[in-house]
Amino acid sequence: MPALTRRPEPLTSPAAATVFTMVLTQGPVSRVEIAKRTGLSSAAVTKAARPFIEAGYLEEMEATEHTGPGAGRPASPLAIRPEREYFIGVKITDDGLIGVLTDLRAQVLETDHRPLADARVESVLADLAALVAGLRARRPEYGERCHHLGLSISGDVDHDTGMVRYSPFLGWRQVPLATYAAQATGLVVTIENDVKALTAAEQWFGEGIGLSHFALVTIGIGIGCGLVIDGRVVVGAHGVAGEIGHIPVGGEAPPCHCGGHGCVEAIAGTGPLLAAVRAATNRPGMTIDEAIQAAHDGDERAREVFARAGHAIGLAMAAMANLFGPARIVVTGDVAGLASYGLLEGQLRQTFAGQAFGAAAGCEVVLRPRTFEHWARGAAAIAIKTLFTLRER
Amino acid sequence: MPALTRRPEPLTSPAAATVFTMVLTQGPVSRVEIAKRTGLSSAAVTKAARPFIEAGYLEEMEATEHTGPGAGRPASPLAIRPEREYFIGVKITDDGLIGVLTDLRAQVLETDHRPLADARVESVLADLAALVAGLRARRPEYGERCHHLGLSISGDVDHDTGMVRYSPFLGWRQVPLATYAAQATGLVVTIENDVKALTAAEQWFGEGIGLSHFALVTIGIGIGCGLVIDGRVVVGAHGVAGEIGHIPVGGEAPPCHCGGHGCVEAIAGTGPLLAAVRAATNRPGMTIDEAIQAAHDGDERAREVFARAGHAIGLAMAAMANLFGPARIVVTGDVAGLASYGLLEGQLRQTFAGQAFGAAAGCEVVLRPRTFEHWARGAAAIAIKTLFTLRER
Ligand SMILES: [Zn+2]
Ligand SMILES: [Zn+2]
Repeated sequence: MPALTRRPEPLTSPAAATVFTMVLTQGPVSRVEIAKRTGLSSAAVTKAARPFIEAGYLEEMEATEHTGPGAGRPASPLAIRPEREYFIGVKITDDGLIGVLTDLRAQVLETDHRPLADARVESVLADLAALVAGLRARRPEYGERCHHLGLSISGDVDHDTGMVRYSPFLGWRQVPLATYAAQATGLVVTIENDVKALTAAEQWFGEGIGLSHFALVTIGIGIGCGLVIDGRVVVGAHGVAGEIGHIPVGGEAPPCHCGGHGCVEAIAGTGPLLAAVRAATNRPGMTIDEAIQAAHDGDERAREVFARAGHAIGLAMAAMANLFGPARIVVTGDVAGLASYGLLEGQLRQTFAGQAFGAAAGCEVVLRPRTFEHWARGAAAIAIKTLFTLRER
Repeated sequence: MPALTRRPEPLTSPAAATVFTMVLTQGPVSRVEIAKRTGLSSAAVTKAARPFIEAGYLEEMEATEHTGPGAGRPASPLAIRPEREYFIGVKITDDGLIGVLTDLRAQVLETDHRPLADARVESVLADLAALVAGLRARRPEYGERCHHLGLSISGDVDHDTGMVRYSPFLGWRQVPLATYAAQATGLVVTIENDVKALTAAEQWFGEGIGLSHFALVTIGIGIGCGLVIDGRVVVGAHGVAGEIGHIPVGGEAPPCHCGGHGCVEAIAGTGPLLAAVRAATNRPGMTIDEAIQAAHDGDERAREVFARAGHAIGLAMAAMANLFGPARIVVTGDVAGLASYGLLEGQLRQTFAGQAFGAAAGCEVVLRPRTFEHWARGAAAIAIKTLFTLRER
């Protein structure tokens, strides 16, 4: 098992992790406010924060809230020093690598892409090493503060052991990717399923900040889902969770590649969606971009197929919301998903509102474009989150 | 807000709660084993256990594992003293109260039933007071060790404030039931939704012991679900969770009382199920017991309706398992549900296996009869769980 983290010295206790995480994700924030939100005593907050200040991760800002005489010391908010450490995140797709260099708050500073020569593990590792070296070379001054690489990949990924158990797109099985990537790059490597990584990025640095229950739904070739419940990303007892794409909303038809029937993914995934538009419009050679264009241009047959896909996704989202009641659902997708937002959104929202049970309909649904760079940022976020979390990811 | 608990003095820290809960739910267990399972130090375990021993909640058993000389002290397992405290649990249904008196391990010692005179709050409270007094009178010697009453009721129940926000069967809205029941009985009262209460009972004292991810599915007039994820009962951001009955697995038909379409409950709930058997067999006056009997007697039209219900429930369970990945799903029901198990089970299991995604199919599905007494025991379990849990239910 590879060294998955290089633990920062100030991270000595769960309280230290809690305090640091709150400043990282919700700061600047005063010690008093941290104590209020975490339930820790003021003394415990001060004790936890001090080593992080000494190690350069946190700093004390000038007091911003001036209180009257006799009201005690003014509150000096704690803030993150984002340049204290840098991270590299890489999303591995079936035809290329997308890499980003970020600061401690997962702000993207540099971006790079690299096509894959082929899908063999050693070939991907060589491309990965070149991509990482290129990113680091752009900011050589960060070298001594850049030790962590996060990798995200679709499929069955075991974060804890660093093992890719199965990647359908690359055809990989049981690849100890974290170990190999650490050898290839010299960095400490964390790996995660791509949807879970994006969920973690939203949880700490995006639409999920401060929410104990939220969900991410991704639309593309597959329909994926990341769930945060009680502040934790759900992983499941058998490593399976968030498979919203295989919720059966379509009755007996159509059959799905998973062996089930009526799965959302078999209706609204890019492949079945394109096939349905081709059939409806009698244009068998049509690309997904052309299908989207036809619908945008007002072809009612194409529009109806997109609406059906939006309906299927809305039903599955309602099923998910009825089961665990998220405060917010972020819907996002790949490039084709993005372009089709306008075509899906109306029906998706209408169906969700009609099927959500009682107060679950109060769940906020937001559609957010997320590019490949966002997915790579998700990989960096997983490296950051792993570094500063004790005992759970 | 009512006094929801009367905190036991030894319960001074999260570590104390963790140690006591482990002995209560998994004991007898040695301090070494507790340390191993909880991640606490041996010293912390010993420190946490001592006040519980002094207060009579725990006791040290004779050492059972004899180790060789030089291997250190033999391990003396810690065990619960179940007679240290007694609890009353009452399930409130639309036509009656079912009450139990239990010990600290939720073992049922006495049972009583009482029909409701009517559904008005004051009338139900009078019946409740009489039921509780009757149960206590059977074991007067427990009086000084019986201070806690748990109530479970279907509908929208706020455990934290003790408020029944909405009970469709009783027609109650915004009833501060915990406060009223405390006044009526003189006991400290905890209330909970009935499915969540039964889930808590399974988690601490039943099929969920030691599992961090498991689910309970209840079949009856409604189709309900309790979820335990990372060891916690899921409550949702808006108080809605576990609404498996309103997962849309039936396409556009049939319409459901919730406003949605194709809900499991609109297919497999007792009402729609009976209506479908009546229609299929042309026996409009048939009761649910007669419908079950007809199917057991081999009426293919009736059998097919039950199989369709099993299919719908299996699809919804697969949707739930695909999202959360429980290690085990316990399927249970009310009396009609029990009798129809054999009619539902084959199709339910087949459909679940066909639709569960990948490793989620490894989830164990067990069907367990649970009588009204089990539901009342769930109410007692919620009182026990609330008493010995810090900061979360
Ligand atoms: Zn499928
Ligand atoms: Zn419904």
